[in-house]
Amino acid sequence: MLKANPDRALADLYHLRSIGTYKTGVHRPTLSPEDMRTREWLVDQLRGIGHEAGIDGIANVWSRAPGAGPFVLAGSHIESQNHAGWLDGALGVVYALEAARAAAEAGLPGGVDVMAFADEEGHFGGGFPGSESFAGELTEARIDSLSDRSGRGTLRALLAAAGLAGRERVRLRPDRYRAFFEAHIEQGPRLMDEGMKIGVVTSIVAIWQYRLVFEGQQNHAGTTTMAARRDAAAAMQRVWHAIQTSFPDLVGPHSVWTVGNITLDPGGWSIIPGRAEMMFQFRDADQAVLDRLHAHLADLVAEEDRTGPCGARLEALSQSRPAHMAAAPQQALSDAAEAIAPGKALVMPSGAGHDAQVIAPHVPSAMMFVPSIGGISHHWTEDTSDEDIKLGADVFVAAVGKMLGVG
Amino acid sequence: MLKANPDRALADLYHLRSIGTYKTGVHRPTLSPEDMRTREWLVDQLRGIGHEAGIDGIANVWSRAPGAGPFVLAGSHIESQNHAGWLDGALGVVYALEAARAAAEAGLPGGVDVMAFADEEGHFGGGFPGSESFAGELTEARIDSLSDRSGRGTLRALLAAAGLAGRERVRLRPDRYRAFFEAHIEQGPRLMDEGMKIGVVTSIVAIWQYRLVFEGQQNHAGTTTMAARRDAAAAMQRVWHAIQTSFPDLVGPHSVWTVGNITLDPGGWSIIPGRAEMMFQFRDADQAVLDRLHAHLADLVAEEDRTGPCGARLEALSQSRPAHMAAAPQQALSDAAEAIAPGKALVMPSGAGHDAQVIAPHVPSAMMFVPSIGGISHHWTEDTSDEDIKLGADVFVAAVGKMLGVG
Repeated sequence: MLKANPDRALADLYHLRSIGTYKTGVHRPTLSPEDMRTREWLVDQLRGIGHEAGIDGIANVWSRAPGAGPFVLAGSHIESQNHAGWLDGALGVVYALEAARAAAEAGLPGGVDVMAFADEEGHFGGGFPGSESFAGELTEARIDSLSDRSGRGTLRALLAAAGLAGRERVRLRPDRYRAFFEAHIEQGPRLMDEGMKIGVVTSIVAIWQYRLVFEGQQNHAGTTTMAARRDAAAAMQRVWHAIQTSFPDLVGPHSVWTVGNITLDPGGWSIIPGRAEMMFQFRDADQAVLDRLHAHLADLVAEEDRTGPCGARLEALSQSRPAHMAAAPQQALSDAAEAIAPGKALVMPSGAGHDAQVIAPHVPSAMMFVPSIGGISHHWTEDTSDEDIKLGADVFVAAVGKMLGVG
Repeated sequence: MLKANPDRALADLYHLRSIGTYKTGVHRPTLSPEDMRTREWLVDQLRGIGHEAGIDGIANVWSRAPGAGPFVLAGSHIESQNHAGWLDGALGVVYALEAARAAAEAGLPGGVDVMAFADEEGHFGGGFPGSESFAGELTEARIDSLSDRSGRGTLRALLAAAGLAGRERVRLRPDRYRAFFEAHIEQGPRLMDEGMKIGVVTSIVAIWQYRLVFEGQQNHAGTTTMAARRDAAAAMQRVWHAIQTSFPDLVGPHSVWTVGNITLDPGGWSIIPGRAEMMFQFRDADQAVLDRLHAHLADLVAEEDRTGPCGARLEALSQSRPAHMAAAPQQALSDAAEAIAPGKALVMPSGAGHDAQVIAPHVPSAMMFVPSIGGISHHWTEDTSDEDIKLGADVFVAAVGKMLGVG
């Protein structure tokens, strides 16, 4: 079996936590000075074990191991959400680095190329720009269109400020790799709740996101009779209620759906809203379920538009594909987990999106989870015990090794 | 009959429109430089006809007519909503000024004291601070608590910047007055729809305002199963639906209820809201209806709190009293309207709140409406025809005159 040095991996994670520290977490938005420091640190580590490595024109950290092969690709993202946890992303990058080091130290004929994909956390609002760029799916025009959602500026301006303007964007060479592995914290409570240590991911859900827009007539909330109103909020309420009552009969066993935000315009106490917007998403890994929910949602909005006093329309903002993990690397994870922590692996879908879903169509891909204490993520209190982090490193490196023919 | 000079009143309104002009309306938030210019202009006009007049410590413009009496009190507010109409408030102040001038010119033994109450439009979020101060119902602590909702600063800071810090606040002397009259644009479409010219108000609805707060658990919208969620937005949706379906059976014929704003926290696409707030109000002039709606709303929220996965609570922010207009000045308005525009007066409730509801418990009070084109208010397109403005001035001044014993 390929052996990790789990204490070294843990020390690396503590080091990364010292860059952009926020309470017990970190604040390292993509292309911030702190984010760039971690990228440069990673390049240094990779060059230190003989890799060709760099930061490309979209801020992806890339590396290529020396040797004749076989090769495995591994990685995750290194930036954080704003004021968020220390492991969301960094864990998968450090495990990949540790696998690369283990392969190098074992003197294998090939090795582990490492990626830290840029902006998986969506600071610029545009899907997974780093892995999409690597997979050849990100156009220059799309880059032109992206801006930081916290107001730090355009993606172009921040790339330029980081010294990356005009740099080539590195492309995936699918033929080079036997597999892609990504490790991540679970971001949910299942492993903890069931006393398990390793999640072996079967599929990554698709996320379909919508804006529901209702347009009525802004008016005075005291002098406009109920009968005369064209209240955009009331129209939205009817559709929302229809979603809440009808979705349970249409969804699959793992479907989730969420109203994340609502805007009533103008939003005053005594003003009937003339416009209402709802941010809505659902997730599932089953294409048939996704299609069924989409059709039903469209029907509900169209019916309100037809029968109610307000205009109602559905804007489909993004409809990603579900990604199914490949058999061989998934089996390698299960076998490694069974060897190192017998009976402690849970085969499970991923309800969150990850760069692996972008890579999966091109390279046989697998994902591994470690437990999240309390299931917390996207918050600075996110955490995983040192023991679980070290165990995860052992399993991850062993699984990568199996795909390289070790053990 | 006491005679207005309606062209003079119209000219005054056009002059006020030239201060803080915004498109065809005005932007004169309370205590802005433009607002203070109109207050100073009004003081000058009142002193010009021999009144003692000034601006007090809450920015109320006050005046006292010379003479032995009898006296009538008249007025409204002079500030505007942000970027709103030219007549909402100013019309009632100018009619009051015109009545005071007419009384002075007629050589009556008494006269018409004029008030321009501060911040009826609620820029500082606190009820009717001007008329409440005048009625002795506004504490210094309450003033300390108020801040501009557009972020211009605290009420204290803006009073100081306007040179009003430490100034005495003038108090109503109820025994001095036979009546209080307030004129206002209708802010609704009834007069226009029914081809009428003058609204004689019977009552001013009470406005009961609430914040509904739901507290659950913020979590990841992909990895948290529907069963495990404590979704504050979903809890809010259940209560909202219960309101929408049950209120129609509980309300009176003139009741209105409105959800003016909603906040989901943190408001991200992929985050289950941990907290949801709804701004809710209902209005009616019937105390029994108000009490019934309040009790039912409290039950709905308590039931969600008891049975749902989230905490739910109802915060009653303000519960004004319905105000019933007094018989004698209301009759004076009807008689004046019948004399000047036979068959063109509509007896109606006011669905909007006004300073008159604060004065009504202390002085016999009446309100008069003029038509609003298209029923529009709180928007810069708000308007009333010159003819209707002049007719309103004639009726208003004649009605005030009747309470002073003229005609």
